[in-house]
Amino acid sequence: MVKVSILGATGVIGKNVAFTLARADTVDEIVLFSRPESIDKAKGESYDMYDALAAEDIDCRLSPSSDYNDIVGSDIVLITAGTPRQEGMSRMDLAVPNAQIVRNYAEKIAEYAPDSIILIATNPVDVMTTIALEASGFKKSRVIGIGNHLDSLRLKAYFSRQINVNSSEVHTRVIGEHGEHMVPLLSSTTIGGIPLKYFLKSVDMDVPRLIKRLRNAGNTIISKKGATEYGPAFAISNLISTIITDSHKVLTVSTYLDGQIEDVSGVSLGVPVVLSKKGIAMIVPIHMNDYEKMRFKEAAESVREVTEEVKKSFDN
Amino acid sequence: MVKVSILGATGVIGKNVAFTLARADTVDEIVLFSRPESIDKAKGESYDMYDALAAEDIDCRLSPSSDYNDIVGSDIVLITAGTPRQEGMSRMDLAVPNAQIVRNYAEKIAEYAPDSIILIATNPVDVMTTIALEASGFKKSRVIGIGNHLDSLRLKAYFSRQINVNSSEVHTRVIGEHGEHMVPLLSSTTIGGIPLKYFLKSVDMDVPRLIKRLRNAGNTIISKKGATEYGPAFAISNLISTIITDSHKVLTVSTYLDGQIEDVSGVSLGVPVVLSKKGIAMIVPIHMNDYEKMRFKEAAESVREVTEEVKKSFDN
Amino acid sequence: MVKVSILGATGVIGKNVAFTLARADTVDEIVLFSRPESIDKAKGESYDMYDALAAEDIDCRLSPSSDYNDIVGSDIVLITAGTPRQEGMSRMDLAVPNAQIVRNYAEKIAEYAPDSIILIATNPVDVMTTIALEASGFKKSRVIGIGNHLDSLRLKAYFSRQINVNSSEVHTRVIGEHGEHMVPLLSSTTIGGIPLKYFLKSVDMDVPRLIKRLRNAGNTIISKKGATEYGPAFAISNLISTIITDSHKVLTVSTYLDGQIEDVSGVSLGVPVVLSKKGIAMIVPIHMNDYEKMRFKEAAESVREVTEEVKKSFDN
Amino acid sequence: MVKVSILGATGVIGKNVAFTLARADTVDEIVLFSRPESIDKAKGESYDMYDALAAEDIDCRLSPSSDYNDIVGSDIVLITAGTPRQEGMSRMDLAVPNAQIVRNYAEKIAEYAPDSIILIATNPVDVMTTIALEASGFKKSRVIGIGNHLDSLRLKAYFSRQINVNSSEVHTRVIGEHGEHMVPLLSSTTIGGIPLKYFLKSVDMDVPRLIKRLRNAGNTIISKKGATEYGPAFAISNLISTIITDSHKVLTVSTYLDGQIEDVSGVSLGVPVVLSKKGIAMIVPIHMNDYEKMRFKEAAESVREVTEEVKKSFDN
Repeated sequence: MVKVSILGATGVIGKNVAFTLARADTVDEIVLFSRPESIDKAKGESYDMYDALAAEDIDCRLSPSSDYNDIVGSDIVLITAGTPRQEGMSRMDLAVPNAQIVRNYAEKIAEYAPDSIILIATNPVDVMTTIALEASGFKKSRVIGIGNHLDSLRLKAYFSRQINVNSSEVHTRVIGEHGEHMVPLLSSTTIGGIPLKYFLKSVDMDVPRLIKRLRNAGNTIISKKGATEYGPAFAISNLISTIITDSHKVLTVSTYLDGQIEDVSGVSLGVPVVLSKKGIAMIVPIHMNDYEKMRFKEAAESVREVTEEVKKSFDN
Repeated sequence: MVKVSILGATGVIGKNVAFTLARADTVDEIVLFSRPESIDKAKGESYDMYDALAAEDIDCRLSPSSDYNDIVGSDIVLITAGTPRQEGMSRMDLAVPNAQIVRNYAEKIAEYAPDSIILIATNPVDVMTTIALEASGFKKSRVIGIGNHLDSLRLKAYFSRQINVNSSEVHTRVIGEHGEHMVPLLSSTTIGGIPLKYFLKSVDMDVPRLIKRLRNAGNTIISKKGATEYGPAFAISNLISTIITDSHKVLTVSTYLDGQIEDVSGVSLGVPVVLSKKGIAMIVPIHMNDYEKMRFKEAAESVREVTEEVKKSFDN
Repeated sequence: MVKVSILGATGVIGKNVAFTLARADTVDEIVLFSRPESIDKAKGESYDMYDALAAEDIDCRLSPSSDYNDIVGSDIVLITAGTPRQEGMSRMDLAVPNAQIVRNYAEKIAEYAPDSIILIATNPVDVMTTIALEASGFKKSRVIGIGNHLDSLRLKAYFSRQINVNSSEVHTRVIGEHGEHMVPLLSSTTIGGIPLKYFLKSVDMDVPRLIKRLRNAGNTIISKKGATEYGPAFAISNLISTIITDSHKVLTVSTYLDGQIEDVSGVSLGVPVVLSKKGIAMIVPIHMNDYEKMRFKEAAESVREVTEEVKKSFDN
Repeated sequence: MVKVSILGATGVIGKNVAFTLARADTVDEIVLFSRPESIDKAKGESYDMYDALAAEDIDCRLSPSSDYNDIVGSDIVLITAGTPRQEGMSRMDLAVPNAQIVRNYAEKIAEYAPDSIILIATNPVDVMTTIALEASGFKKSRVIGIGNHLDSLRLKAYFSRQINVNSSEVHTRVIGEHGEHMVPLLSSTTIGGIPLKYFLKSVDMDVPRLIKRLRNAGNTIISKKGATEYGPAFAISNLISTIITDSHKVLTVSTYLDGQIEDVSGVSLGVPVVLSKKGIAMIVPIHMNDYEKMRFKEAAESVREVTEEVKKSFDN
């Protein structure tokens, strides 16, 4: 029996992850965990989802709950709770209040679901990954931040459409910080296994414009429809399914580094990893050009600084 | 190339149908039609959906538009626009203002997409089906109201869970009005082809309670989360896919009757039909017991009355 | 980890079941069990299948073996071994030699995989079900003969094409003996939940001709291509997937009766059952008309007689 | 309506392609074309396949035929006919007799299905591609040989298992001749977009042994089970589905070269291409190291020589 618990299940991201995951039909039970004052809304969501699942003959148990005892036995616990990012707000602006929330949840997970894998979607996600790691006391391979996976999916989609190839042919990564300091790895982007640079000779494409569009993608959606909704939910659900089915795909997630990439250590950043049912099975040996290395180190410094400020705020 | 246009694409139902349909990967283009003042929101929805589709390697064009020229060539046009039902409101309370909207849209569809099939999700759906039929001048088989399909899916899910069989084994129908006068066809409900009544001898089940829950299902969700969202969207998407793939499934939809069932005529009501890419291929020859017949005729009278009142309002 | 062992994996049925099941992606390991003299062929099959699975990104372990230790831990063990039926041969002609094979395998399964479910595809399958049940000492719910499921699928396909409805709408059963004494349950055949007889008023269909074609279906294929291959393999794989995914579908299989249907007992016959991961979860309460009852009892007598003759042969 | 015709449909490859394709559910009709003396066998195959499709609710028309009028309107025509390769036989040994068959079929296709795409699976496939191109008079983009796609799938599966990553992460190509002069493109093999050479530092893998195994893969299966069956059928079906769904994947097929790769021209060889519903949409700009270039040119000379000998045989 596969069980996933979603903390913050009545928020836009939480409910859409729950529903996407239920439809993927790889999970037996999803706990829709919410604060007691939202439990009625969580129940409404579960009824509405059951109606939709009936249309597809899918059988997945949805358990609205405010009781930590109900997360016992979870394979994965996803933290989506936190103040949502609003238009113009930097991800870093959210750090201090959200860190309190994430720390509290990570401690509860360690108590009630000590064998689970923790996924963090709360922003700034790279900072929150370190907070959750330390608060839970879990191994590094079982505390995973979700950020650059969506950035990477976006960039993949851009290239796929520009070159007119199936998106499964595009391998590209956005690493570093999920935010201003994201680093698109153009030097190791391949199309059907062929380096991007060879395609650029025969395909007309304005790469800097694509990168700019990538950086603004989240803000553009927030400005137009008020929030990002389907994109993050699918990226997260995709990542959870990869773990549950033990499918050893290479995805870009935030993990606490110990010198594996460019000697960066003591901070969580997005890097490509092989995901298995045990969490992170391997950090993939990426190679960067000099510009990418420089940008990756800037990302490390930026995230490190906020992480330390946030930790100081705990002492007060 | 299969093209579906959704009128009212930024509403809760419209956007969820669009997204569900895009994921189903049976459609090449979806027009997200909205009023000019919502076109920015429609664009935001399309960007957000593209992000999610990238996570699943799905390629479906999403076209936000306020221009009727963009619905030219549609195979199906779905009308979701209208004042949404609110808690405690009867579907009939909405009839007059929504009929104006539906009539206007049906005329535009007849002009710009004369070979399409019109689906109507606007409530009260049985009334709106007749309005759209008359305003478009289309053949009866190409004007289809969506209502009892969701009711039927709900009832199927209830029986599936109570008896603990796969829901594909349950064939049950809710016909008549999509609203207070719905008629659950218990007499022809079967489980794995075996009549329900034989199962009731060996399985303990409170059928009247299930029916009561069915009648309140929509209101319960609205009271808890503010609106129904996933359920209707999936029922509608499921129906659209059935038409597009020409799969000849038997679904319960609202169609203008001409005496085919119990001599009822001159009104649109939910009945089981075989759906093909031409719309309604056949009205299925159901048989009812005396109680069900009586209730079906009551539904006919109720819908007829409102339909006539609404039509009178057009003259003023 | 889900493990299925196939005894007789290099035969036409065995290898096609293995491959179909591997593609279905619900099983982690399939043991291709064969006699030592065929083990090289089993290895060739596994290499060939791996090539095909690579084309679909499916990861399923295929283990050629002649060693019973390799079936330890199987969730399901399928017996396909036996002399194949040849054109004109009645299934009963095969009974004595095949019973020896099945008895021997059933004893080995009881020793090496005592917690498994035994499926029997060796003909005459209803007789072999009783033989395997007694030789294994397993509970009745865990010894399942596969025969009328394919007959039922065929009849379902015939009705689906004649009436032009999706085959998921057709519920029909062929019960009794998998062979000359099969009993098509026309009285409880439904289309979209509506009894067949109502459709016969509006659809022109020669039911007796369909039934005749059904009875000859296997022999027709054998006479034309030398053996049945894809049909039985898919019926068996479908049944295995239903058990593994615990999906509670209603399928028609051979099971040892104890008076549940028309007071028939002491013999294995095809009847509709709910299948779960524990095997047979429930025998479905079918109702027959008088003609069907009479035919069902004839099937019982026919199978009983052969079963007893076969058992006598063991004493000599 | 999508229609595919298979010439040689009762052979091991032909029938398995037909069945795999029918199951993929992307085609509306498959013509099982065979010589008049095999038409009964073709009918038997169709009945057997219908039984299997019924188990999966798939609706695909299977049309056994010996009449070229039945291939009219085909989107794709696949030539599988020819003397099969036997153990120890080089693909080239088959060239002259098979070229007669392919030439004849290509002329018939040009007459009866002039707008189709021709796929050739008959060996030696690179030679047959040129023969079919010239006999049909079709554009180069619509005459496609199937050979290195299976080789590439095999190599991909090997790397996936050795490195323990999902096979969708591996991009590798085998180009050149489908036969002794195949050229594995190790220099542009990537795992998750990362070049293979970086993985070889952290993963222990005997690449030369893998390449040797790749070269022998077909012969190993033939020696053990008598013929290759599932592997080629799936590679071919996969390729047909890619064309039909217009999915713009990058696959390795044989195409007549005109100087696009290393100035090789006047011969058909396996190279990576983008496949669309129009056939070959683009030859992908691969880069090779010096060793690979040398081997590719050797392949070109080898295939050119046999192609010319075969063409001379036509004059006699």
